[in-house]
Amino acid sequence: MYHSQEHMTPMLSDLYQVTMCYGYYLSGIIGKTAVFDLFFRNNPFKGSYTVFAGLQDVLDFLENFRFTDDDIAYIRESLLPQADEGFFKWLKEVDASVVRLSAMEEGAIVFPREPLIRVEGPLGVCQLLETTLLNLVNFPSLIATNAARMRIAAGFDKTMLEFGLRRAQGPDGGLSASRFSYLGGFDGTSSMLAGKLFNLPVKGTHAHAFVQAFHGLEDLRNLPGLKDAKGKEVDFKALVLATAEEAGIYNTNQGELAAFIAYASAFPDNFLALVDTYDTLRSGVPNFITVAGALKKLGHEPVGIRLDSGDLAYLSRETRKLFTKYGQRLNLDFSGVRIAASNDINEEVLLSLNHQGHEIDIFGVGTHLVTCQAQPALGCVYKLVEIEGSPRIKLSQQVVKITIPGCKDCYRLYGKDDAPLADLMIMVGEDVPEKGERILCHHPFDETKRVYIVPSRVEKLNHLVWKGARMIESVSLHQQRKRLMDQLKIMRDDYARPVNPAQYKVSVTETLFKFLHELWSSEAPIEEIL
Amino acid sequence: MYHSQEHMTPMLSDLYQVTMCYGYYLSGIIGKTAVFDLFFRNNPFKGSYTVFAGLQDVLDFLENFRFTDDDIAYIRESLLPQADEGFFKWLKEVDASVVRLSAMEEGAIVFPREPLIRVEGPLGVCQLLETTLLNLVNFPSLIATNAARMRIAAGFDKTMLEFGLRRAQGPDGGLSASRFSYLGGFDGTSSMLAGKLFNLPVKGTHAHAFVQAFHGLEDLRNLPGLKDAKGKEVDFKALVLATAEEAGIYNTNQGELAAFIAYASAFPDNFLALVDTYDTLRSGVPNFITVAGALKKLGHEPVGIRLDSGDLAYLSRETRKLFTKYGQRLNLDFSGVRIAASNDINEEVLLSLNHQGHEIDIFGVGTHLVTCQAQPALGCVYKLVEIEGSPRIKLSQQVVKITIPGCKDCYRLYGKDDAPLADLMIMVGEDVPEKGERILCHHPFDETKRVYIVPSRVEKLNHLVWKGARMIESVSLHQQRKRLMDQLKIMRDDYARPVNPAQYKVSVTETLFKFLHELWSSEAPIEEIL
Repeated sequence: MYHSQEHMTPMLSDLYQVTMCYGYYLSGIIGKTAVFDLFFRNNPFKGSYTVFAGLQDVLDFLENFRFTDDDIAYIRESLLPQADEGFFKWLKEVDASVVRLSAMEEGAIVFPREPLIRVEGPLGVCQLLETTLLNLVNFPSLIATNAARMRIAAGFDKTMLEFGLRRAQGPDGGLSASRFSYLGGFDGTSSMLAGKLFNLPVKGTHAHAFVQAFHGLEDLRNLPGLKDAKGKEVDFKALVLATAEEAGIYNTNQGELAAFIAYASAFPDNFLALVDTYDTLRSGVPNFITVAGALKKLGHEPVGIRLDSGDLAYLSRETRKLFTKYGQRLNLDFSGVRIAASNDINEEVLLSLNHQGHEIDIFGVGTHLVTCQAQPALGCVYKLVEIEGSPRIKLSQQVVKITIPGCKDCYRLYGKDDAPLADLMIMVGEDVPEKGERILCHHPFDETKRVYIVPSRVEKLNHLVWKGARMIESVSLHQQRKRLMDQLKIMRDDYARPVNPAQYKVSVTETLFKFLHELWSSEAPIEEIL
Repeated sequence: MYHSQEHMTPMLSDLYQVTMCYGYYLSGIIGKTAVFDLFFRNNPFKGSYTVFAGLQDVLDFLENFRFTDDDIAYIRESLLPQADEGFFKWLKEVDASVVRLSAMEEGAIVFPREPLIRVEGPLGVCQLLETTLLNLVNFPSLIATNAARMRIAAGFDKTMLEFGLRRAQGPDGGLSASRFSYLGGFDGTSSMLAGKLFNLPVKGTHAHAFVQAFHGLEDLRNLPGLKDAKGKEVDFKALVLATAEEAGIYNTNQGELAAFIAYASAFPDNFLALVDTYDTLRSGVPNFITVAGALKKLGHEPVGIRLDSGDLAYLSRETRKLFTKYGQRLNLDFSGVRIAASNDINEEVLLSLNHQGHEIDIFGVGTHLVTCQAQPALGCVYKLVEIEGSPRIKLSQQVVKITIPGCKDCYRLYGKDDAPLADLMIMVGEDVPEKGERILCHHPFDETKRVYIVPSRVEKLNHLVWKGARMIESVSLHQQRKRLMDQLKIMRDDYARPVNPAQYKVSVTETLFKFLHELWSSEAPIEEIL
């Protein structure tokens, strides 16, 4: 578990879960069997899909779901001073041993109204889980989805790095962002702690402060030399200056040049320089070229440059031209040198860069990734759908807010090319859909939308993950990421496209459709107009 | 300290801080004396002010700033495999004992370009603090500012509650949101853990699930009675039904009525009912009135109702009318009954509600408070401003991105009415501004903007908070909140107004102005047009 143990407690919840339980307790219905669905109603970012994440933390939370004596003393004294002692006994004894969870896989591609997690058990304990489960699913799923969208926008051949720790919601918000943006398709993070805790690739170079810290070449007087291919120590600074002369590079900022020499001396096989401290094309890139050229002469391969301001498309193209021009002058091959960019990048910028044409190989994304600025919250909700075997419906004047009642399973139906055609919710106990069968799929609310599907493959999406104890092996983050990338790559273009995508079909069986509409008709009041 | 101990480590940082340090180390400049400023360039939410928060956590972090052997092993093996052993020795020994911090007070109202925290010490250790300090300041300051803006929008007479745990960035993101929205002027939170950890008022009632869990009055068969003023047990359900008949209330949803009876029995002195599960005005409010009326007959004061959907202004006004109408019929005074509202509230909604006219007393704000949807990140940065006594300037083609060089103090100048007139930055060592003196205040970049101020009071804004150890007493969150509320209340209306506010003057002395422009002129390259 990576969240603080002190935070992963039943106290990480809204007071009203406990006050409701006390109401259930007094009425004698706290032990009734209930089913709750955790789901969302709209894909984030105006998209057509969502990546489900957070399940591993949910299971960690259930394993430790116990109020301490200290918690109960606090509730008794500060929150429910007038409650019966019997209720505190109930709180003291409650745990997740009597609860069952059926859930989608971590990293699954999911759609609106599908139960991401189905929770079954006594009403009281299921109620107590609501807030924490939502907290543990909403943000991870949002971040993973945001990362997946940026991955698709940039293309699968680019390197995508998460740089957002400084702008995230505190230490743990930053760690979650690193972890779940990796799941969503990023290649690494700048955060050392995330790298250490989750075994992620950690990347980083230097900041403007490093360049500013050097005034000129005199700051290098203590810098040790570098070794050449034969192991002989070489005066690297002198080699750089000779290379500059050979290339005809003059009048660059000498503090910046000193900083690059120092950095290349420290990381001769990992030299990536931030080039925009003074002037990207007049100082930063030429200084990089002289230092990178000197490294190449010693047998090292420079990694590249980073752009952190200005017109990224233009600067990347001009930088590439400078690499070619000076490569020819120096008779060195700079074609493998990479260009990284990192200023205020979001999905729109990535799409715009593609449109403009650019030479960027590596994207560093911070603020807009970790805060999900385009939509900073996913709206997962947790709704009662059945009690004592009797399905419940939550009415609303907005059709999209009506909940689908009852205990349901969810299946994915695949077409001949093994791409998903539609998802189908069935009531538990109904015949399960089989491949090769003709299956009538209904839109849950719109009776004019229905379709027959003969799937070439059927996949059950939800699985029993908890039955008083963890029922699944934990899958590594790397495997989860791999599985998601495989799914994203086969997603139909009309679902994957960032703007106005087609909406994937989430359907219900004939039986569930009829049942839902009968229940709606019997429960919804008919307004009288007088 | 409330963040996980495991997270509050020097590892909660970007890799490039360590790679830069290695570059400084190799060049022999790691021990040079540096000054860094932590500041932001633009107020969030298109506003004119920002609330500074996070300082307490920064000091906690400094107290524990030490790499463990395990951290160093990870860095050596996974991150910097080719670095000198001497550098790992340096990492092993580094701590915050040689660092000084001068900072604004937690909860202070602050403005763009002012150093919120000034960090002085050896270059390497100051560099290592960057990411974590930004992480610990950015989100708390953003949340506190967001909360303060909502407080101003709603008015100081309203009750404001934070309900955002389920949508926050993980457990710790949720806790930070509760804590710093309280600092910013909220009255309480729904989060039990935040209440327990930070001694905050915790509030909450019930959700729709509670109402749905009751089918009808038959679900109350085990409910115990309530006592009247004389201590005699009364059949509360029968009293409610009699009250309904007396009021002429029929055809409401009976499951909802049962739920309200159960809830009122559990919390007779704290009865606040969610009234929109079926139909607010036809079922929810009438059901509330019958139950609240019965409570009143027993000597209890019902608290109120909560609206969670629909047209909040309209529904609140209609609800108030129903309270009056049925109060008269029942000969009971419902004028003290409060109306709470909680659906998708943000600053704009609060302003719009004021404009429409409403009867809401209590606002519950979740998603838009904790995610700061209007601007989900504050852009604090951490810039080198001096090294070995030599001021540094960070140039930029955008004037607003130029840093103000050197080691500076910050003063607030007050007018005759004791309201702030302007802030003034001076170079450390300059004469400090005195009350009654005529002080020339320059806009830092625009030479046409300058003004003489004769302050009636002068306040130094930054204070030494760390000098190898904590230099200030910790002030309780409640006192910080009080201090901020006092400041917000005297803020001039043109600064406080939510749309297009006037910009508060942040100025520099004549000396600093001249110095800044000389340094700029000597460092900025002059483009040649050929």
